Formats: sequence, C-alpha cells, structure tokens
Amino acid sequence: MKYLGAIEGGGTKFVCGIGTAEGEIVDRVSFPTTTPDETMANVIAYFEDKSLEAMGIGSFGPIDPNPGNSTYGYITSTPKPHWGNYNLLGALKERFDIPMGFDLDVSAAALGEATLGAAKEQSGCLYMTVGTGIGAGLVKNGQIVNGFTSPEMGHILVRRHPEDTFAGACPYHGDCLEGLAAGPAIERRWGAKGFELAPDHKAWQFEAEYLAQAFANLILVLMPEKIIVGGGVSKQLHLFPMIRSRLTELLNGYVVHPKIQEQLDTYIVPPGLGDNAGLTGALILAKQALQGR
Amino acid sequence: MKYLGAIEGGGTKFVCGIGTAEGEIVDRVSFPTTTPDETMANVIAYFEDKSLEAMGIGSFGPIDPNPGNSTYGYITSTPKPHWGNYNLLGALKERFDIPMGFDLDVSAAALGEATLGAAKEQSGCLYMTVGTGIGAGLVKNGQIVNGFTSPEMGHILVRRHPEDTFAGACPYHGDCLEGLAAGPAIERRWGAKGFELAPDHKAWQFEAEYLAQAFANLILVLMPEKIIVGGGVSKQLHLFPMIRSRLTELLNGYVVHPKIQEQLDTYIVPPGLGDNAGLTGALILAKQALQGR
Repeated sequence: MKYLGAIEGGGTKFVCGIGTAEGEIVDRVSFPTTTPDETMANVIAYFEDKSLEAMGIGSFGPIDPNPGNSTYGYITSTPKPHWGNYNLLGALKERFDIPMGFDLDVSAAALGEATLGAAKEQSGCLYMTVGTGIGAGLVKNGQIVNGFTSPEMGHILVRRHPEDTFAGACPYHGDCLEGLAAGPAIERRWGAKGFELAPDHKAWQFEAEYLAQAFANLILVLMPEKIIVGGGVSKQLHLFPMIRSRLTELLNGYVVHPKIQEQLDTYIVPPGLGDNAGLTGALILAKQALQGR
Repeated sequence: MKYLGAIEGGGTKFVCGIGTAEGEIVDRVSFPTTTPDETMANVIAYFEDKSLEAMGIGSFGPIDPNPGNSTYGYITSTPKPHWGNYNLLGALKERFDIPMGFDLDVSAAALGEATLGAAKEQSGCLYMTVGTGIGAGLVKNGQIVNGFTSPEMGHILVRRHPEDTFAGACPYHGDCLEGLAAGPAIERRWGAKGFELAPDHKAWQFEAEYLAQAFANLILVLMPEKIIVGGGVSKQLHLFPMIRSRLTELLNGYVVHPKIQEQLDTYIVPPGLGDNAGLTGALILAKQALQGR
C-alpha cells in the first residue's frame, strides 16, 4: 500500500510521518531542528524506504508559498541561524520525484482542523498557535489562503494592557502581539513559564487581553468560520472563557451574527486534532498535491 | 444593445449607472439616500426603461453577502434609520428578473480597482475608503473574499497617538480606527473638515499614524497584492508619503519582499479609477453574475 508523507517542520523539531488521504497517521518520528544539512538528512533517511505517492510539508516561516516564484518552497528571511534563504522543498524534490504540497506550518494546521478537526463542519477556519512564537493560518473552502506571501499574523500591533510594563520580546517590533503574548514574553515578564503559573495569576489577564484584541481584529478583517487556538497556551483551558469574555466587550455588539453573539463557546476553541493538527494538515497538503490542486 | 446595470449604494447617496462588461460607464445618475422606499423607487425608475442583461450592487454595510443565507442581499445591522434588516437585493429582484451580483460597496470598489484600476496588473488588492466612515474590501484572483459575513475592517483597534486626547467618534468602540481616523473624528477633534486643514497641520500626523498602523496589521494578516486608498482622504496626496514612511518604521524590516522594501510608492496608492471604482466594480459584479460565477 502506498502512503502519503507528511512533514511538520518547526523551529525546534521536525515531525515526519506517513498516513492516508483520509488523514490517518500510521507512523511518525521526530528530529531536533539543528542545521538544514543534518536535519534534512534525518528527514530523507526516514522517508527513503517508504513507498510514497505524494508529500505535504508545513514549515516554520517566513516561507515563500507561491508556486510562481523563483523562491517557491524556500524558508526565506528567518533569523534562525543556517535556515535563512534555504530551499527546503528543493532538498526534498532532489530525492523524491513525487507531487509535493508546501505551505506554512500554521496554515497546514488550519487545513488539518478545517478538514478533519474542530472546523470540519465549517467551510474554513483560522488556526493560531501561541507558543514559542505566535502565528496563524487561514483556510477557506478547503484551501489555504495566502497573499503575495504567507501571513505573519503573530506580529500585529496590539494595545498594551494598562498595567503591563514589560518592554516586549520581539526583536523586530518589541511589543507586537508575539512580543507581548508568546511564551518567551510570559517567561521574561514573570520569571516562570506559563504552565508554572496558577490559573488566577495576573499573567492570564494580560494574555487574555492580548489574544482577545488579536481575535477582535482578525474577526473584523477575516470573519473566519471558526477560530482554533493551538500551541502551549491551548493547554491552559481556563484561558478560553477569559478570552471570550474580553472579546465580547471589545466587539461590543458590533458584529451581529450568531457565531459571535450566541455561539462564542464553540467559535473559539482548542484544536480538535490536539497536537496532530499540523501533521494531519500536511497529509491533506499531500493529497491536494496528488490531485493537482 | 444590452447593458449591465450598476448600483453603488452609499449611506449618503445611491449612484446608479449602466455600462459594459468591459467596465465602460455610459450613463449615470445619483439620488440622496433617504428612506428605503423613496430611494429604491428612484433606483427602480432609473433602470426601468433600460434594457439590462444583469445587475451588480455594491452596498453600504453591514450586509449579508453569502448566497446560502436566508438574509442574503440584506443590509443587516446598520444603525442608519430605516435601513436595518432591509432586503435590498429582494427589492430589485422583485422588479428585474435578471442575474444580480451583490456585495459590500468597498468590496465592489476593490473588484473595480483589481480588474481595471490601480491593481489591474496584480492578482488582487485591498481597497480602503477613508471618508465619513472607514471600510475595506479584499479581492483575490478576481473574486471578492468574504468570511461568514463581509469584513468590517474599519473597526480594528489601533494604538492611540501619544498626543491624541480625542475620545474617539465610533458609537460602538470609541477609539477604533474609524473612531479616530474617519472624517467625523477629524472634524470633531480639530473643529474643521480635513480638506480645510493645511498639509503641515498636526491632524495629518495623527491620520498617518492610524492609517499606517492599520496597513501594517492588514499587510501582516492579508499580504494583499496592492493597497488602494479611496474616499475623501485619498484627495490629500501629501498624506501618502507620510503613511508609507511610518509604515516602514512600524514593520521595521520584518516583511522581506520587494513590494514592501522597494516598491512602497506604487504599493499604497490612490484609486486608479478615481471616484469610479465603486460603480465600475458593480459592473464587474454584474458581469460575474451573468457568467454565473
């Protein structure tokens, strides 16, 4: 039986797996993200004896997701050492002559959730990860939505919580969303990691404020069918009601729709696929590549 | 010869016209927006003796743009007296048995600019109007992009300019983008309308700050192929270099792409179609309806 290959390439680890067009993962392995040469040697060795029909790759970014471009399939301007301007898709195509789909890791996760996860009853969704960094991807009608390049939604500007004096941790923008609300910001601000902080710690008021602002803006701009929040923060289930409550205040009745006014508890949710959203989405990317979409 | 009908339905006036599938406007007329009955009687009387193949409508919002919904074609939750929950498309369909396209006014303008205006060489664009209110629409691959409803980008949150003490003019959000940067905010803050203020007036520093923040966020979320700024503010040409300069500071080199790094002068621009963007876009909506898209 021929399988589909899936890669979830993150800044910390690369998860590789094989599975079916229905999104079933039948095997998986993971490698630390070191240099491209070393990491990709591990990836290629894993897939070499598998009989694959197609491959889907969700990669950390920024990437170039547009097939028309000369840098399509590259990790482009990442500050991560060794990986800037790296032709990730090219390294795989050199070894495997099969159809391949390539997109941002969070966009692949959005595709997984929209196809088989928390948004499978919807025509699309926004998937946001809040962890070491913040990123988000959008799916509409079963397809990932990109512009002239893939989105970088984690770096939108938010308003500072009035009691927050932390300067912000983003090397580019200081106190953008990621700079104020990703894991490193929590750790530097409070001297402890998020999972070490009690549910009634003030950290979560700040976190809910920033994520609610982000979702208010993303709703007004994208009106996504559903919002799915993954990454480390999605394990903090007490945060979800806080985000929903503050979001309702911020929108203040302006968006008149049952999703926002009556169904917010099922509109902003953790991933239906748990930690499998990214790898499942990569399988769907592989399936779409096979179908020539 | 059969023409296409076009309606640009605004909160102040309804512009109606006829034209060709190539976007040529051959006749136009305009009526003040009063009650729905009176306004629509004028609209219907104008089109009654025209021989039309199809009609396109760009309407002020919020509207329901999704054909699957029972309120498709309605102006939904507007605070404008008499127009809330008004079946605009239904009133037209009752009189004219022809294909009709219906969407938000700014989305229609984006479609006009993407097809025949400043973004005709691009695969899409974002069109923002800054006037009595602020709104924006997105086009990708020749199609208007909506979510569970049409976007309301004018109400995104921005950070207050440190010297700005004006409370904001939005009845829902106070100091959202529209509340701080639309025409009424300028007039109430400075006691004069925008066109009465000299190019070196501090008003324009505030305006550039708020619009640059909005475009920074919209770029990070949508990565639109081009940004087109219409409405009254687009007549203030001195504002464009101020917005571009502040936007470059805010993004701080994070979005690595020639559009942002080298071509910002042609990336954020006034409408190529001037005040015809909306009506031209409505003609394209009519053409798409005729083609069954």
